[in-house]
Amino acid sequence: MPKISERGSLMPASPIRKLVPFAEAAKKRGIKVYHLNIGQPDIQTPDVALTALKNYNHKVIEYSHSAGNESYRTKLAGYYKNLGIDIDCNQIIITTGGSEAILFAFKSCLNPGEEVIIPEPFYTNYNAFALDAGIKVLPITSDINTGFALPSISEFEKAITPRTKAIMICNPNNPTGYLYSREELMQLRDIVLKYDLFLFADEVYREFCYDGAEHFSVMQMEGLEENAILMDSVSKRYSECGVRIGALISRNKTIMSSALKFAQARLSPPSLGQVIGEASLDTPAEYFKNVYDEYIARRNFVIGALNKIPGVYAPMPKGAFYSVISLPVKNADHFCQWLLENFSYENQTVMLAPASGFYATAGSGLNEARIAYVLKLEDLKNAVKCLEEALKVYPYTINPAVHNTAKN
Amino acid sequence: MPKISERGSLMPASPIRKLVPFAEAAKKRGIKVYHLNIGQPDIQTPDVALTALKNYNHKVIEYSHSAGNESYRTKLAGYYKNLGIDIDCNQIIITTGGSEAILFAFKSCLNPGEEVIIPEPFYTNYNAFALDAGIKVLPITSDINTGFALPSISEFEKAITPRTKAIMICNPNNPTGYLYSREELMQLRDIVLKYDLFLFADEVYREFCYDGAEHFSVMQMEGLEENAILMDSVSKRYSECGVRIGALISRNKTIMSSALKFAQARLSPPSLGQVIGEASLDTPAEYFKNVYDEYIARRNFVIGALNKIPGVYAPMPKGAFYSVISLPVKNADHFCQWLLENFSYENQTVMLAPASGFYATAGSGLNEARIAYVLKLEDLKNAVKCLEEALKVYPYTINPAVHNTAKN
Repeated sequence: MPKISERGSLMPASPIRKLVPFAEAAKKRGIKVYHLNIGQPDIQTPDVALTALKNYNHKVIEYSHSAGNESYRTKLAGYYKNLGIDIDCNQIIITTGGSEAILFAFKSCLNPGEEVIIPEPFYTNYNAFALDAGIKVLPITSDINTGFALPSISEFEKAITPRTKAIMICNPNNPTGYLYSREELMQLRDIVLKYDLFLFADEVYREFCYDGAEHFSVMQMEGLEENAILMDSVSKRYSECGVRIGALISRNKTIMSSALKFAQARLSPPSLGQVIGEASLDTPAEYFKNVYDEYIARRNFVIGALNKIPGVYAPMPKGAFYSVISLPVKNADHFCQWLLENFSYENQTVMLAPASGFYATAGSGLNEARIAYVLKLEDLKNAVKCLEEALKVYPYTINPAVHNTAKN
Repeated sequence: MPKISERGSLMPASPIRKLVPFAEAAKKRGIKVYHLNIGQPDIQTPDVALTALKNYNHKVIEYSHSAGNESYRTKLAGYYKNLGIDIDCNQIIITTGGSEAILFAFKSCLNPGEEVIIPEPFYTNYNAFALDAGIKVLPITSDINTGFALPSISEFEKAITPRTKAIMICNPNNPTGYLYSREELMQLRDIVLKYDLFLFADEVYREFCYDGAEHFSVMQMEGLEENAILMDSVSKRYSECGVRIGALISRNKTIMSSALKFAQARLSPPSLGQVIGEASLDTPAEYFKNVYDEYIARRNFVIGALNKIPGVYAPMPKGAFYSVISLPVKNADHFCQWLLENFSYENQTVMLAPASGFYATAGSGLNEARIAYVLKLEDLKNAVKCLEEALKVYPYTINPAVHNTAKN
């Protein structure tokens, strides 16, 4: 039997999804599982999008242009203009989810063996995409005690080698919920120009900024025309994760022509998803207002309630709908699996994503988990209650009186 | 300005799509362009599929399982059982088009620098996917004078090196329309086992076999359980290219667990496409009968008419809906661009895919082009007429009396 590839063996299983078989088994045993492990919102897709689908009347579901329908790209350029990002439809390639935008950017910009610096914890699949592209992630660890703020620029400078080609951020951040300030971004701009690097920004949670904070995009910074690359997605903005529509955006023509060749190879992004993505651009402001209010309520409840559990610490997120929390356990991977395999409270349990997979530094985040507050309040209440009860009976819970220092 | 990657520079522009800007410009000048360059059928998507879309009533368009919906995979296993391919739903991963199935297979099975042998001309995007995966294509040239039959097995043996990990075929073949016989496949089976290789088979045109010929799948051969990997797609079968739904199929558990990790990284295949793919499995036999009759009529017309043009030779395809034809020109790339830029006949022109991009051997296929007979008869008639008239006035047409030897 021929051997599979090394990258096939090394490819990490998703920490968000690797426990799915245990969740499925729990459900088969009749246990209700609250999914805080995955950013799959229960918010309704906008009516304008669902209506566009109902009105779809093509008789042949055809390929689109490899860069996506021109009508969609043109309208999308208008969306960015409204945000203060001045681009045209030729600076946009519609991708199959934000995932493909990241892959196109990695592959177009970095040779195998070259490096991208990313503050950790970071969206776990960046690791997978880096392995796919044969590139190396250099992590710079951010700290739960600062709410996972941007590490100091001197840390970045220390990490840069001759093989470093890019810095990547996710803003607002998945998994931490941190929102980078304009000042932090200007620091990144300076270092990127100083060392002639690309700056990749995953800004798919742009609309989810709380407490009056404003989002500032890498595409709004002057002088970064050739360096800045934006990865975007409709998945969370309009709660339509399943359409698999994202976008790669840059003013750098060389990158865009390279990415277009990758796009041509896979022919076209999903045609129906584009119909929905384009229609979603007409989503009324009221929709976002309601979604915003809902997430603020969920965030305030879940962070408050988690911090009341002995030994648990959850920093207050300023954006997105995640938080990386610390737990009074030594091995959150074991605890999260145990929650599904060995625990239930009133026939319910909760599924979390162990945070170790969100770090590239081995041994980091072992007592942390990512939660996504994407369920309605009542479900969140039950989920937090399950977590509280579980920590009371989990055999390896650490005495919170000794270890719960992060809150102080 | 930071430099883009080598693979970004080397990635080939799709020969099927690279002339699109010239076609768009021709259309803006008011010229009707007949698209024989791309396998985008004008056949209607089955009613069952369009109805399923109309009946879609989810309020949240969610991610699916990374391997695809279980209901779809289960029903798809039934489709394969009916073809004599005995697999279950765990041996199927639903992919974003056949393209992603090929990428998952290349990356799961081959390390960068390792080799896959493919008879050429081959589906041009295999080159792009190989470059993406960092692997090397070893081409073995098939011959227009044998209708592009499988080259002799001794040619394969000569090509095998210690880095060779796989042989890949497309059956029925895109771009040649050749259908490999059971005997040819058994020869491949023997060599694959002898050298402990994977056998990749792209069988997306399975339903398009003509003149009573039967399709034989690599999944039907005994002894290849660990070696055979099937790449499939709904695009052409149901004329729904835009849904971007394919499948990776193997009985080799190690490969499937590796591929699942790649699938998890990109979260899920398109959800709406899966609804359509699943519904399409109920397409009535009559639909296929009509499609078959239509393609037979198109094939017989187009191949007959092309062979009447002085200097043109088109072998009779036994499957799929393509043919690689030879033209009385020295440089088909130039000719195909000229057709769009400098030619029109009664305000019409024709777009072909230059065949050079379907070869990995530099300098091969320079006088060849791929045609896709995916348009209705009347359009095909006009398209062939355009080609005939074009060759009369193209400044670099070679005297057919001297060069048209392939027909003899």
